[in-house]
Amino acid sequence: MIRSVAPGAEIADISHLIEPFGVRQGAMVLYESVPYFPQSIHLAIVDPGVGSARRAVILSAAGGSLLVGPDNGLLVPSAVRLGGVEAAWEITNLELGPPDCSSTFHGRDVFAPAAAHLFGGVAPAKFGPEVDPGSLVRLQEAAVADLGTHLSGEVLHVDRFGNLQTNLQSVHLERLNAAPGDRLQVLIGIKALDATVRRSYSYGGAGELQLVVDSHGCVAICVNEGSAALLTGARPGATVLLGVKGSAQH
Amino acid sequence: MIRSVAPGAEIADISHLIEPFGVRQGAMVLYESVPYFPQSIHLAIVDPGVGSARRAVILSAAGGSLLVGPDNGLLVPSAVRLGGVEAAWEITNLELGPPDCSSTFHGRDVFAPAAAHLFGGVAPAKFGPEVDPGSLVRLQEAAVADLGTHLSGEVLHVDRFGNLQTNLQSVHLERLNAAPGDRLQVLIGIKALDATVRRSYSYGGAGELQLVVDSHGCVAICVNEGSAALLTGARPGATVLLGVKGSAQH
Amino acid sequence: MIRSVAPGAEIADISHLIEPFGVRQGAMVLYESVPYFPQSIHLAIVDPGVGSARRAVILSAAGGSLLVGPDNGLLVPSAVRLGGVEAAWEITNLELGPPDCSSTFHGRDVFAPAAAHLFGGVAPAKFGPEVDPGSLVRLQEAAVADLGTHLSGEVLHVDRFGNLQTNLQSVHLERLNAAPGDRLQVLIGIKALDATVRRSYSYGGAGELQLVVDSHGCVAICVNEGSAALLTGARPGATVLLGVKGSAQH
Repeated sequence: MIRSVAPGAEIADISHLIEPFGVRQGAMVLYESVPYFPQSIHLAIVDPGVGSARRAVILSAAGGSLLVGPDNGLLVPSAVRLGGVEAAWEITNLELGPPDCSSTFHGRDVFAPAAAHLFGGVAPAKFGPEVDPGSLVRLQEAAVADLGTHLSGEVLHVDRFGNLQTNLQSVHLERLNAAPGDRLQVLIGIKALDATVRRSYSYGGAGELQLVVDSHGCVAICVNEGSAALLTGARPGATVLLGVKGSAQH
Repeated sequence: MIRSVAPGAEIADISHLIEPFGVRQGAMVLYESVPYFPQSIHLAIVDPGVGSARRAVILSAAGGSLLVGPDNGLLVPSAVRLGGVEAAWEITNLELGPPDCSSTFHGRDVFAPAAAHLFGGVAPAKFGPEVDPGSLVRLQEAAVADLGTHLSGEVLHVDRFGNLQTNLQSVHLERLNAAPGDRLQVLIGIKALDATVRRSYSYGGAGELQLVVDSHGCVAICVNEGSAALLTGARPGATVLLGVKGSAQH
Repeated sequence: MIRSVAPGAEIADISHLIEPFGVRQGAMVLYESVPYFPQSIHLAIVDPGVGSARRAVILSAAGGSLLVGPDNGLLVPSAVRLGGVEAAWEITNLELGPPDCSSTFHGRDVFAPAAAHLFGGVAPAKFGPEVDPGSLVRLQEAAVADLGTHLSGEVLHVDRFGNLQTNLQSVHLERLNAAPGDRLQVLIGIKALDATVRRSYSYGGAGELQLVVDSHGCVAICVNEGSAALLTGARPGATVLLGVKGSAQH
C-alpha cells in the first residue's frame, strides 16, 4: 500500500513479530527504535480495537518526525522520547485511502495510506481535526513498590530468547545492595527462585538463572543459554518480587 | 541470488512465513498483495514438487507484470487478479542460472535467476517454449454448498492471530439472515460452537467467538484477543458449517 | 543504528531467525549466503558470550569483503569461502560506538556501529589492534567416521521444514552403494528408521522418510511434506548413522 501511494519512500521494517494484541510490547519496540532514525514517519500498528470507536491518530513530535497509528497508547512513549507530542490529529477523512475501507484491517486501509500521503507532503490537518495531545490514550505505567525486604515490579516484555525484561532498574539492585556475583530471590508466579546478578549472560554457567541489567537499562530475568520464560511461564504483566533470601519478615 | 544478477533491482519481500507446503496459502498471500504493486516481476515459491516433473513457468499478466514460479497453482489466481494470463512460458533453459542446478532448491537456482534476468531485460522466450495458458495447473476452488439450514464452506487460511478465513462471504451471512449482533452455530471438526456476527473484533468482549467479514471480504471465524485456531484445532481445508442453531432438520 | 551512522548504506537482511545461541547455525547460513554478494560488509551476530572476554573482530577476506562480529567461529567459514582471512583486527576502540555501551547488546552498541563506520570509509585499524588470523576461534568440524557397515555423521542444521542437514555428502552415499530408489537404515537418537534415497522430495509419497542431497551438497534426512525433526526429535549436533539394513556385524 505504501509503495502504491509513495513509490519513492524508503521503508525500514522494524518488526513484524509483535505478539498479537501486544500493544505494550509494540510500544516498547518502537520506543527502543525511534532514537536511531533521522526525521521519519513512524507507522506502527498493534490494533486490537480496529473498527471500533478507538481513534486513528497522527502525532507530530519535537524534531519533525510524525507517528501514525491507533490511539491506544502505542505511539505516545515514542513521541515523548523524541521530545514530546507537539500536536495531534484524528484521522477521519478516509478519502485519501482506498475506496473500500475494511472494518478489520486499518493498517492497510487507513494507517499505511496516511503515512504514505504524509511522506508525499500532504499536511496532517488534511486527514482530520486537530485534537488535544492531553486526550491521547496512555498506557498505564508499571510501578515499582518497595516492600522493605523485597521490591515489587512487573514483567514488561519477553524477548525471543525468553529473557523477562522488568520495570526494575539498576538503582533497584543498588537498593537491595546487590552487586554482580550476589544472589537474590526472585518470586514470580508460584515460583521462588535464586538468581545471580551478572554483568552479562556468559559470566555464569549455562542454565544459570540471572539478573542482568539489559541494553535498555532494565533488570532482566534470564537463563544463560536457556529461556527464563520457559522456566517460569511468565508473560508480560506478571508481578515480580526481588529480594534477599530469608530476609522476609514473618 | 537476485542481487548478484541484478544489483539494481528493488526487492520487496512480501512474506517468508508461508507454512511449509502451503501452496494455497502462498497463492492467497500473493493474490492479496499484487494489486498494490506497480508493474513488477512477482517471484513466488512454495514448491513441494521441486526437482520433479512439475514445470517452472513465467506468466505474463495483463498490464505487463510477470510472475515467476512453479506451475502448481501458486501464480494463476494473482495473474487473473492482475487482468488475466496473457502468455506463459516454461523455463527449460538453465544456462541463465548458476552452473550447478540443485534438485531441491529451485528458488535459488531457477526462479530467482530467471526473475533477475527478466528484470535485466531478457525476454521470457529466452527461458523456454511458450505454453498454452489453459494448460497451467489451477488450484481447485473451494465450493460453498447450501444445505438448507446450514451453509457448508471451507477454511482457506489461518493467519498468525489464529483467525480462520473461510470461503464464505457476506452474501452467505445475508442468506442466513444474520446481521451484526446475531448468533450463528459454527460446526467445525467435532465442535459445535455459537458465534456472534460482528463488524469488527472489539465489538464483543475478549474471548468471544465471532464471525467477522474480514479485509478480503471473507467470513472469518475469530476469537477476540484470542485464537480460533487454538480453540478449534482447524487447519486450512477444514470443512465449516454455518447455520441457525436448532434449525437443523431431524 | 546502521542507518543513523551510514544512511546511504544498502542493507540486505539475510535472516533474523537464527535460533538463540545457534553459533553453528548462524555460521552456516552466512556461509551459504556470502558467495551471492558483491564486495560487502557482512555483519553477523550470534553472540552467547556478549559482554565477556570473547573478542569482537573485523576480518578482511580475499576479494575485499569485510566481516564483523564476535570471535566465536561465526565468521571464519564464510571468510574462508570468500577466499581466506587476509587480516583480522580486534575491536577495542568503543569511541566510534554510542556513548553508553551496554554489556548485553553488542549487536547494537559495537558491531553495527563498526560495520556502518567501515562502510563510511573508516579503516579497520582505527577500531583496534591487528590480530593473528591463526588466533581466531574456529568451530570444531563435525567428522565422518567409517564404521564398515555404517557411516557416522552429525546433524548440522535443522531448517524450517524440519529437514535434518548432515555433514554426510553424496560421496558417502556412493560409499554405501546407495542410488536413488535404494533404501538405507538411519540410526538417530533411539530410533532405527528406513529411508529411501531420492533425487528430490516429491519422488516419494507424502510422509516418506528420505535421504536427499540438498542444495548445499549435504545429505539431508527429510520427510516429504512432513518434518524429520518432529519425527526424530533430532537437533543440531545429533549423531546420525547411515548404513545398509541387516548388514551390521554381530
